[in-house]
Amino acid sequence: MLDVKQPPRLESYICGAWRAGSGSAKPLRDAATGAVVAEIDSAGLDFAEALAYGRAAGGALRAMKLHERALMLKALGLKLMEQKDAFHALSLATGATPKDGQIDIEGGIGTLLNYASKARRELPNTRVLTDGVVEPLSKDSSFSAQHILSPMRGVAVHINAFNFPIWGMLEKLAPNLLAGMPAIVKPASQTAYLTELMVRRIIETGLLPEGSLQLVCGGVGDLLDHVTGQDVVTFTGSARTGQMLRAHPAIIGNSTRFTMEADSLNACILGPDATPDSPEFDLFIREVVREVTAKAGQKCTAIRRVIIPRAQADAVRAALAAKLGAIPVGLPGDKTTRMGALASLDQREDVRRAIATLASDAEIIFGNPDSVQVTTGDPETGAFLNPVLLYADQPMQARAIHEVEAFGPVATLMPYDDLGQASELAAMGKGSLVSSLFTNAPDVAEEVVLGLAPFHGRVMIGNRDSTKSSTGHGSPLPMLVHGGPGRAGGGEELGGMRGLHHYMQRTAIQGAPRLLAAVTGRWLDGAEVRAGKHPFRKSLAELRIGDQLVTEQREITLADIAHFADFTGDTFYAHMDEDAARANPFFEGRVAHGYLIVSFAAGLFVQPDPGPVLANYGIDNLRFLTPVYPGDKLGVQLTCKDINPRAEGDYGEVRWDCQISKDTGELVALYDVLTMVAKTWPA
Amino acid sequence: MLDVKQPPRLESYICGAWRAGSGSAKPLRDAATGAVVAEIDSAGLDFAEALAYGRAAGGALRAMKLHERALMLKALGLKLMEQKDAFHALSLATGATPKDGQIDIEGGIGTLLNYASKARRELPNTRVLTDGVVEPLSKDSSFSAQHILSPMRGVAVHINAFNFPIWGMLEKLAPNLLAGMPAIVKPASQTAYLTELMVRRIIETGLLPEGSLQLVCGGVGDLLDHVTGQDVVTFTGSARTGQMLRAHPAIIGNSTRFTMEADSLNACILGPDATPDSPEFDLFIREVVREVTAKAGQKCTAIRRVIIPRAQADAVRAALAAKLGAIPVGLPGDKTTRMGALASLDQREDVRRAIATLASDAEIIFGNPDSVQVTTGDPETGAFLNPVLLYADQPMQARAIHEVEAFGPVATLMPYDDLGQASELAAMGKGSLVSSLFTNAPDVAEEVVLGLAPFHGRVMIGNRDSTKSSTGHGSPLPMLVHGGPGRAGGGEELGGMRGLHHYMQRTAIQGAPRLLAAVTGRWLDGAEVRAGKHPFRKSLAELRIGDQLVTEQREITLADIAHFADFTGDTFYAHMDEDAARANPFFEGRVAHGYLIVSFAAGLFVQPDPGPVLANYGIDNLRFLTPVYPGDKLGVQLTCKDINPRAEGDYGEVRWDCQISKDTGELVALYDVLTMVAKTWPA
Repeated sequence: MLDVKQPPRLESYICGAWRAGSGSAKPLRDAATGAVVAEIDSAGLDFAEALAYGRAAGGALRAMKLHERALMLKALGLKLMEQKDAFHALSLATGATPKDGQIDIEGGIGTLLNYASKARRELPNTRVLTDGVVEPLSKDSSFSAQHILSPMRGVAVHINAFNFPIWGMLEKLAPNLLAGMPAIVKPASQTAYLTELMVRRIIETGLLPEGSLQLVCGGVGDLLDHVTGQDVVTFTGSARTGQMLRAHPAIIGNSTRFTMEADSLNACILGPDATPDSPEFDLFIREVVREVTAKAGQKCTAIRRVIIPRAQADAVRAALAAKLGAIPVGLPGDKTTRMGALASLDQREDVRRAIATLASDAEIIFGNPDSVQVTTGDPETGAFLNPVLLYADQPMQARAIHEVEAFGPVATLMPYDDLGQASELAAMGKGSLVSSLFTNAPDVAEEVVLGLAPFHGRVMIGNRDSTKSSTGHGSPLPMLVHGGPGRAGGGEELGGMRGLHHYMQRTAIQGAPRLLAAVTGRWLDGAEVRAGKHPFRKSLAELRIGDQLVTEQREITLADIAHFADFTGDTFYAHMDEDAARANPFFEGRVAHGYLIVSFAAGLFVQPDPGPVLANYGIDNLRFLTPVYPGDKLGVQLTCKDINPRAEGDYGEVRWDCQISKDTGELVALYDVLTMVAKTWPA
Repeated sequence: MLDVKQPPRLESYICGAWRAGSGSAKPLRDAATGAVVAEIDSAGLDFAEALAYGRAAGGALRAMKLHERALMLKALGLKLMEQKDAFHALSLATGATPKDGQIDIEGGIGTLLNYASKARRELPNTRVLTDGVVEPLSKDSSFSAQHILSPMRGVAVHINAFNFPIWGMLEKLAPNLLAGMPAIVKPASQTAYLTELMVRRIIETGLLPEGSLQLVCGGVGDLLDHVTGQDVVTFTGSARTGQMLRAHPAIIGNSTRFTMEADSLNACILGPDATPDSPEFDLFIREVVREVTAKAGQKCTAIRRVIIPRAQADAVRAALAAKLGAIPVGLPGDKTTRMGALASLDQREDVRRAIATLASDAEIIFGNPDSVQVTTGDPETGAFLNPVLLYADQPMQARAIHEVEAFGPVATLMPYDDLGQASELAAMGKGSLVSSLFTNAPDVAEEVVLGLAPFHGRVMIGNRDSTKSSTGHGSPLPMLVHGGPGRAGGGEELGGMRGLHHYMQRTAIQGAPRLLAAVTGRWLDGAEVRAGKHPFRKSLAELRIGDQLVTEQREITLADIAHFADFTGDTFYAHMDEDAARANPFFEGRVAHGYLIVSFAAGLFVQPDPGPVLANYGIDNLRFLTPVYPGDKLGVQLTCKDINPRAEGDYGEVRWDCQISKDTGELVALYDVLTMVAKTWPA
């Protein structure tokens, strides 16, 4: 046994200290052995105070820039990964096999690390984000608008499910902390000891500003009575509990943001092309078996409904039965075990009851919920259950199979008669987190996936091409949205940087560009500009948004166009042939190449000597607005738009607004030039 | 009187027909005269059937492409604008002056037109939208993901407020129909006659697919009992009613999307720099007067709390009193009238009660709610009320002024002692639709606006620069989000193309690129490609995504670099000076210009003869990934990524994925080339 110091009574981390409840504690039992692992109780804790403490702590997070928060998550993730063996050791008590544990532990910590690196790649190093483009609200650029996203001023309260005590917390914490909001986590009691261990290790790192993470082990008491419109409440778990929370008077009364992920009746569809001799058939069987057995079927994304061509019903049934029959069920730590225990004996009883209800619509075609076969462990004291398959011959007429969830190793086969019925059956689940389709036919993919999309937060297509690389039906990924409409709770989590939006308020800021720029830190058309020293001579220490260069003008001659065509090989007729160019709907004669225009522009604005501008690494949103004809004189206006010093390293990104115009004032081209600029440069 | 045919009893447009209720009708009275304008009743209508009818009608909308839906809105908007005089004539009965009516009528129709043109500019002409970038999920491009947005399969139910019977409907319908969802509109009874007239005119145009718009005049009965997780419910009105609807069992039980815009205690702040001799002071006074009196203060965005430097309290009070005292109140159709009537006598009683509650925290410093002075009309039968100002000397200690709304021409002045207090006072409203700040100082704008942002959906800055162009504190705009957290309902509407998202489901689609491309209609890395005829020789009729050109290679020589520098004038040292280039952190010696690389690339891929590719109108997301040194050989892979035929016109936009690589396989640059391509071209 490693460094797992298991307190007999779990504590909550509230208002800067670990605190025990003052009531009578409830025992939490090892899922597979029934031994008491810990006790839990939160009586007597002051939740109103915890919320107030968290809200006050938000300032420290908001004072950090986004890349600083991301580096904090990275450091935290690396520190926690070092200690993963301790988490794995304790994870066995939840009934999870080591492989199940990886989804929870490495999956959770990996989400922190993924957010940490994605944020630094995709977001600027600021405190407030801009959202979308500048909206010009006047013709003379005297009144414009920009949407911004700023962290909400409350606390994010995460009420989590028992099945992923670590991932369930970290997948919410990553975007939440990155967005700049503090959190209070309330894990489901059954497996709270693992969350508690993780939070202890997190707090010990000292990497998070104090107050940005609090933990409640046990009931949340009156906590929700005290939430405001600046707090956010998330819930993962059963639809019934979620609906109760969503209707809480304080949540309704304050329009508190509430996000819910509920277990849903996720479907897996076998395409009509995927006959038993196709690779897709085997991949489908493998996926269903994995989803029925991983975590003993206790995943909110697990496959519950297996939708198959009627012609393949026997083949599917036989293939699944063969594979499921070969799954050894036993103590999760045992090497031969491929499926561990359900979370608790109560949980097993719930699943048995759900199977009985499903059996009103469908027949059990594999397994016996009342007779447990284990290779190790005791089926009386451990919450073991072997896989169960049901079959509903007329699924379009059935109800229970589309409404009742057995949160365990249970799935129902349902045949479809035509492809439209396949998506219809999936939709009869009234909204799911995910469904998958196994097909190699593009037309099947198009029809079924577009039919599934409105009812799902995620749809996975499996085929031979992705055999090795597929992340699978059941895995939410940090960069993809996780959530689904209707029965799945109507929530949305993760989704890469989208995930931050749930903890930020979007605000449209309107005003004169000069004042708007002061708020957003970004230059926009109409805002103040400063001439003087060539802005390419300024390091980040000196450069300010609005620093501007207006270049000399240069005439473009017919000889230039001919020469450029000859030099580059771009002899497109509109550059070469007066008559042919005239015939083109956009041109009145031979025009200059777009690439010639931007090349000459660079010639006009580039400062040649070694200096703080190190490289041009790209161009964004280049649009050619007016054709350029021989004899036109072009000048460039280059303005520093956005300065983004990296949290690490000696330089940062600078975005320049670039406008090329004719001497007549006509705009020729608009684009952003992207450069790397040194933080300092010797005078 | 124009073409206003006023039915004595309003009808609902349900399931394809105009239907009268079967119960006893309620009279609706002219706000200013008390005369009966119409009667209303919806008893006996089958709302479950209406929902089912609407859902079935959704198919016709979804079958249209986005630009087709936009052109439908444009045609509708133009048709309705022709009839605006009829709407204006009837609008007077609501108590609105012609100027108030413009906000409602021209404002509403303008929103349709704005969405119609913005959608064609900003969105592709497809049925399903992609959201964000392709997420590569494997190193070998065999498994990737793309988020898509697809229309939800239910009906959008809009429950609207009495104050904007036309704008209130159209601002929701524009994004709703554009997204591809049908709607049922339920206007507030008090002014439903104007909405009914508008819907009659809309249906008469025959421009909308039948079933995409239904109308309920009168109560909604059991309608909400029948909503599902695919329906959307929006509410605009009082917080109390909104909270009741949000907690409706069917909305909670089905996680039905619910958006709420509630009246909020919007603030207007005078900056400390805006002393009485500054233009900002006058602009501030003018704005407060406008917001207190426009629509007789019955706007959910109206200024309710006037937050001012304590030193300016007397000056502000005097200036406001002078202006408000000069506002003639009377019959809305009378030319001398500047403020019309409240919506009803009941409404006036509500406002008087609210003023009485406010007076527990503040003193009335201008106006007398119990003594009405009119220039025309009868203050007994017409719901007139003159402006009322209150003053709360210690607003940080007050409660009612931050909690109670008088939905009429009423505002409370509250002094602040330091700038932090100004945003704090605004935040004490617990979330508002909008606040505004009048200042000319960038540092004041930055501090106050960033303090306001988390509590607001919109913040306006007023100063001398935007005197003429400002759209004002109280005007929601189609391109900006409208909504606010907390007391304002926690909803979001409009916001340009963001507004469509409320009626669409975001779904992450994962799979092999070949199948993903079939679903999204967009080529992505790893998807199928086709060689053959140069793709620039193909018109839209022939071109398919995945059509690809792999070019010859071209060596870049030192002479090329020197020549390009000389020709363009871009003599940046990294191109010219071996030693200086080496000293740069990114380069190992003299490098080719980025512009030279893309120019040579064009020379490699452009097909010179007249053909269907008409013009290169831009470049997106150009990133230089590896420096190019003399002697490097470059080739280009150009792949048709996205084809977007315009709904009108002979051509469309084609986006090409462009990858420049060295002969070693190293990627040099990645970008999208944007071209205009003819729909057809003679062979």
